[in-house]
Amino acid sequence: MSKYWSPAINSLTPYVPGEQPKQSGLIKLNTNENPYPPSPHAIAALNDYPKERLKLYCDPEATLLKNALKDYFSLDYKNVFVGNGSDEVLALAFMAFFRQEHPILLPETTYSFYDVYCNLYDIAYTQLPLDQDFNIDLKAYEQPNGGIIFANPNAPTGRVLPLEQIEALLKVNTESLVIVDEAYIDFGGESAVELVRKYDNVLVIQTFSKSRSMAGLRVGYALGHEDLIDGLERVKNSFNSYPLDSLAIAGAVASIEDEAYFQATTQKIINSREWTTAQLEALDFNVIPSASNFVFASHQRIAGADLMTYLRGKNLLVRHFKKPGIENYLRISIGTDEEMTALVNALKDYPGITG
Amino acid sequence: MSKYWSPAINSLTPYVPGEQPKQSGLIKLNTNENPYPPSPHAIAALNDYPKERLKLYCDPEATLLKNALKDYFSLDYKNVFVGNGSDEVLALAFMAFFRQEHPILLPETTYSFYDVYCNLYDIAYTQLPLDQDFNIDLKAYEQPNGGIIFANPNAPTGRVLPLEQIEALLKVNTESLVIVDEAYIDFGGESAVELVRKYDNVLVIQTFSKSRSMAGLRVGYALGHEDLIDGLERVKNSFNSYPLDSLAIAGAVASIEDEAYFQATTQKIINSREWTTAQLEALDFNVIPSASNFVFASHQRIAGADLMTYLRGKNLLVRHFKKPGIENYLRISIGTDEEMTALVNALKDYPGITG
Repeated sequence: MSKYWSPAINSLTPYVPGEQPKQSGLIKLNTNENPYPPSPHAIAALNDYPKERLKLYCDPEATLLKNALKDYFSLDYKNVFVGNGSDEVLALAFMAFFRQEHPILLPETTYSFYDVYCNLYDIAYTQLPLDQDFNIDLKAYEQPNGGIIFANPNAPTGRVLPLEQIEALLKVNTESLVIVDEAYIDFGGESAVELVRKYDNVLVIQTFSKSRSMAGLRVGYALGHEDLIDGLERVKNSFNSYPLDSLAIAGAVASIEDEAYFQATTQKIINSREWTTAQLEALDFNVIPSASNFVFASHQRIAGADLMTYLRGKNLLVRHFKKPGIENYLRISIGTDEEMTALVNALKDYPGITG
Repeated sequence: MSKYWSPAINSLTPYVPGEQPKQSGLIKLNTNENPYPPSPHAIAALNDYPKERLKLYCDPEATLLKNALKDYFSLDYKNVFVGNGSDEVLALAFMAFFRQEHPILLPETTYSFYDVYCNLYDIAYTQLPLDQDFNIDLKAYEQPNGGIIFANPNAPTGRVLPLEQIEALLKVNTESLVIVDEAYIDFGGESAVELVRKYDNVLVIQTFSKSRSMAGLRVGYALGHEDLIDGLERVKNSFNSYPLDSLAIAGAVASIEDEAYFQATTQKIINSREWTTAQLEALDFNVIPSASNFVFASHQRIAGADLMTYLRGKNLLVRHFKKPGIENYLRISIGTDEEMTALVNALKDYPGITG
């Protein structure tokens, strides 16, 4: 620390992202990246972009990308906000909407950046426990609050909520905003985007990092009523006018244009997830039903931390959270079939894994 | 506005960047972009980057870029912070350092994003006037404060402060941080980077947007004592883990590696600036001596707004600020010699410009 720090900085506990190893030859199933490359159309757009044009500022509005997203989701231009990955969109949304009188509500087990944002902006929050099957009980959120956020599907559980439960919450929770973080929605959940047309109290946040294979390009977006988007734009334009560089805009637009590739790779991951789930269950794992590109699994007899360490020794990275209630679980990203076969084979070699 | 906004959002007045026209055929001298393309080495790095790797998250530390910058400036790795353009670096620095008991001090006429950040974070600030020649009088900053920030060279004046004046301030202002925004330092000023090695109360912020021709790639950085960088990292990692995408990192590293191109293009702009200054003076303009890639000039008889409108009609964009004290000035970015010749010729056609 330093006497030059703003006093509030001393109490921050920053988010810790999953390991990005510099070592090669590892099978990376620890940060929910997509095992398939970006769409060839997007790669071509990035290669073909006239790089000499980078001397000019990018479009601060990212107009081309907002237009592509509005068309894709059949919304209006004013319903679309874009940012430097969904992490930045979330950070700006917490600032724009959640600095309220009442604490915000969020699940006790969910994306671990949410409480980091709360600490950054000095937002009070109440964490509501999941039920014993790791479901979010939205009925518990029907209480006075300064805002509500949850991931759907949730992380790291992979559990998805049906749309009618979210709509029921929107109908009664009319005095504060509900943010639905849909980073993983394309792997089997039903998006709340259609509720954006009917309700002014819901903001849907999605990302190009998972289903569109562009974690390294940093593009996320929010969809909501135009007054919500206006609030986000005010904060964004008080923070950084140009968060999306010209290449990120070009690559993201081209990705949206390639629906066939998006559908094909997403379906491959869903298939691999179902195969992996069956294989893990055969090895005496409890696997939470997943609608995402990862599975959350605990073994009936072997500690999660031990399995993580063992797999690391086999050059297989998975994620383990030292958190009460889930400390016995591994979060395993879905890779290619070859990668998942390597994982399953490595686990089969673990002494006594099948009892 | 919306009832879902955080109350503080209502009072924000966002920054308004210079116009990025979608119309082609304009000569853009309004946003201080570099008229020359990025280094061919950087363009090659962007073209050659294996785009399929974008499926993976970028390095949240941007290690390669920090290493390139530490070597370039002969600093340690821990003295370097990188972000999504110097605007993001500035925004994070205001949050990390300037939320203090006392108001911060800044020039009355300077980069207009500074007071926007103050409003965003509810930071009290005092604006100190420039002297009649548009110089920053650093002696006036020797008073109790929660932090000090100025641009050197200053914008939109182009005036530069000598290093010994900055060092004198650092010697007496030991209880708060001094941020020197050096967006334009490579066009003739003396950088305060060497003071980073001697003082723990100075943070130097620079950008790839101007002298490195990469405004569209969004890369900025801060150099300072490791405790200052640690403070910035804490805020950054509580906001967005991955602000620099993989392509931005690769392009910026390659740019740093091409010193010859950087020196050559910077010198060309300096030469064009001196030529432009002489031409404008011959047309009865008062031109503030500039150490940047723009000139700030007012005509002895013709109003700045009139000249801006006239030039726009000739497809020449320059920037005009409707602000008392400078409302008669134009800020003219330095383009290629051909572009500056077009500007001067257009002005020569203005009726009665030479009296």
